[in-house]
Amino acid sequence: MNDRAARAIAECRTIATMTEEPGRITRRFLTPPMHSVHARLRGRMEALGMAVHVDGAGNLRGLWQPAVAGARRIILGSHIDTVPDAGAFDGILGVTVALEWVGIAQEIGFPLAIEVIAFSEEEGVRYGLPYLGSRAVAGRFDPAHLSRTDAEGTTVEAALRGFGLDPGHIAEATLDENALFFVEVHIEQGPILEAEELSVAAVTAIVGQTRMTLTFAGHANHAGTAPMHLRHDALAAAAEWISAVEAMGRSTEGLAATVGRISVEPNVGNVVPGLARVSLDVRHAFDRVRLSAVSSLLETAAGIAAGRGLTLQQKAELEQPAVPMDERLTALLLHAMEAAGYPLKSMPSGAGHDAIVMAGRLPTAMLFVRSPGGVSHHPDEAVREEDVAASLHVARAFLALVAKNFV
Amino acid sequence: MNDRAARAIAECRTIATMTEEPGRITRRFLTPPMHSVHARLRGRMEALGMAVHVDGAGNLRGLWQPAVAGARRIILGSHIDTVPDAGAFDGILGVTVALEWVGIAQEIGFPLAIEVIAFSEEEGVRYGLPYLGSRAVAGRFDPAHLSRTDAEGTTVEAALRGFGLDPGHIAEATLDENALFFVEVHIEQGPILEAEELSVAAVTAIVGQTRMTLTFAGHANHAGTAPMHLRHDALAAAAEWISAVEAMGRSTEGLAATVGRISVEPNVGNVVPGLARVSLDVRHAFDRVRLSAVSSLLETAAGIAAGRGLTLQQKAELEQPAVPMDERLTALLLHAMEAAGYPLKSMPSGAGHDAIVMAGRLPTAMLFVRSPGGVSHHPDEAVREEDVAASLHVARAFLALVAKNFV
Repeated sequence: MNDRAARAIAECRTIATMTEEPGRITRRFLTPPMHSVHARLRGRMEALGMAVHVDGAGNLRGLWQPAVAGARRIILGSHIDTVPDAGAFDGILGVTVALEWVGIAQEIGFPLAIEVIAFSEEEGVRYGLPYLGSRAVAGRFDPAHLSRTDAEGTTVEAALRGFGLDPGHIAEATLDENALFFVEVHIEQGPILEAEELSVAAVTAIVGQTRMTLTFAGHANHAGTAPMHLRHDALAAAAEWISAVEAMGRSTEGLAATVGRISVEPNVGNVVPGLARVSLDVRHAFDRVRLSAVSSLLETAAGIAAGRGLTLQQKAELEQPAVPMDERLTALLLHAMEAAGYPLKSMPSGAGHDAIVMAGRLPTAMLFVRSPGGVSHHPDEAVREEDVAASLHVARAFLALVAKNFV
Repeated sequence: MNDRAARAIAECRTIATMTEEPGRITRRFLTPPMHSVHARLRGRMEALGMAVHVDGAGNLRGLWQPAVAGARRIILGSHIDTVPDAGAFDGILGVTVALEWVGIAQEIGFPLAIEVIAFSEEEGVRYGLPYLGSRAVAGRFDPAHLSRTDAEGTTVEAALRGFGLDPGHIAEATLDENALFFVEVHIEQGPILEAEELSVAAVTAIVGQTRMTLTFAGHANHAGTAPMHLRHDALAAAAEWISAVEAMGRSTEGLAATVGRISVEPNVGNVVPGLARVSLDVRHAFDRVRLSAVSSLLETAAGIAAGRGLTLQQKAELEQPAVPMDERLTALLLHAMEAAGYPLKSMPSGAGHDAIVMAGRLPTAMLFVRSPGGVSHHPDEAVREEDVAASLHVARAFLALVAKNFV
């Protein structure tokens, strides 16, 4: 599998040169370099004997049919857009690896068809709305999205037409009943596999997420003349709460609890802060664990504010339920790891993926590949050949199990 | 004393109308409204039979001589400049009250001369350097200060000349050996007297101060994919330390310990903070208490950083020793409070005053007057007539004690 892994990685590097900004990898939805990416992938797909087309939402789709006539099909893929100044593997690796799955399927005489989809949009950079590509495939593309505008005032509709597409064909992009399930291979974008010295993991769920802003308001005071016991220090209150957020995260298995943003007023060294505004980001694979953690943290914040004679305001910003992956498919991925001789590893995904949207349409699973240094959304983003090869060994075993279980 | 108190307050209100900015009280060093303030105070001084002049540094000085020829003299006063958008009492109250002291001295046949100084500059607003007026009076005006420039590029020297003064006369502003001691009356600018329901307090010392910036540096990480135990969260580290700073302040009698400023990178809700930069402001009347607290807090910070795998940088910004007030004069002020029937109260000053500079030249004491709400450097700054009257009852008793002890 090492040759296949090396090729999948080399293809990512090649595609990384197709960018809006010379010297940096930036490739937003339907921007000119997407034509080059489509051309490159189309060539690879056709060489594999696949029938290729671009759907109404800009997704490049290749279909390989086995010798068996009328076979149902499985869906593989990931996205080909990037964040600004991105790395070379987020998304695109899931496409180049999917093409190797097709090669493996051909080798082992896989009896089902395989459709590989290179989703046009996942990051949400250009239109502030993620998953535009997979929404269309999953039948969840709201026609109202067509009138969203980017920073230059270009609508989604105009961008599609400018790319040579007909927005009227978006509805036809939706998967038919012949599609069995979806599997997405993606880099982990985190440090867990590296810390545990593992190559790959099956994803159990994409975590649910709560985002809020809390504002502690006290009184600004002279740092010299206001004695400690007469202060209403908003930053000291926020600091106490930030420690509580971290403690909650550390003491709750699988919980990620983060204060990433803080602003203080007046934010001057010799003035006791009168106001502190902090963000909260809480994620967990089980909604009840997340909601209970959030509720407990809000109670703690209220207690801290009351005990210090401050007021507390809270503003909800995002409330996104967890999306579990399909249990049967995930179990097959784990069996495949075992069969391929890799340690069994499953974990939730802390980041969102096209699989979130696809799971609303059909059984969906994800396979993570180790991220060296846990680095992602950064030019230093990398993958190791041995880990991609491991994912392909697992893929071969998985396809064999699928052939046995789904036909 | 109520009439005297009402007049001292009314004079402050009158002088508050002399401002650079209509609708706000802003009166910086040697700006045009200073001429009006001088004219107003000169009139009051001459009505009291005082000889008036403006010295080379722009301080307005009035001398009252008793019948006794060749008497030594005491110095009273405070500053007449303000911060931008100031209140009506910070500084100026110490001048209008000093003129009432002269009236009282005349009533009781005080045997010493009294010089009242309206210091030209204390806040450091125009030239970023405080105490320009009292530096000249204390013989500590560095000729290099003359070439400092304000925001418009005007030097101190040009400002002095523009005001009609001769910088060559600054050296003559220095007090001669005939000056016995200095007393400054000032609003507290803090909430302590109000909390204790007291009108006045003798100041024991102007606190020493340490200012630093500490930088905790960890690693920025994805708030979803980085598990709690693999994070190096700079804000969580800073929060832990901010709580330690507050706890140190609360557990150390008389210590003010403040984190007033924080900045975090990247400061985005869904990214674990990689860097947190925080200010430290520590003040105490005893240098050894302050220095021991700072050293302990730096140790704590180093421990927090090490325990979390972060690096810590620290930058010293200000190291200002405490300035004790003269013990004998302060004891006389307390005796005067007792004689006048007020509860004995002494406290350190958490803010700087002209008394810091004057204490380097001659025995110096301060009398604080309660600040309603602890408010200062703000248009809501106020004083109560009863408190100013209390300060004048204390003044009368103090002058009587001085007549007995210093003649």
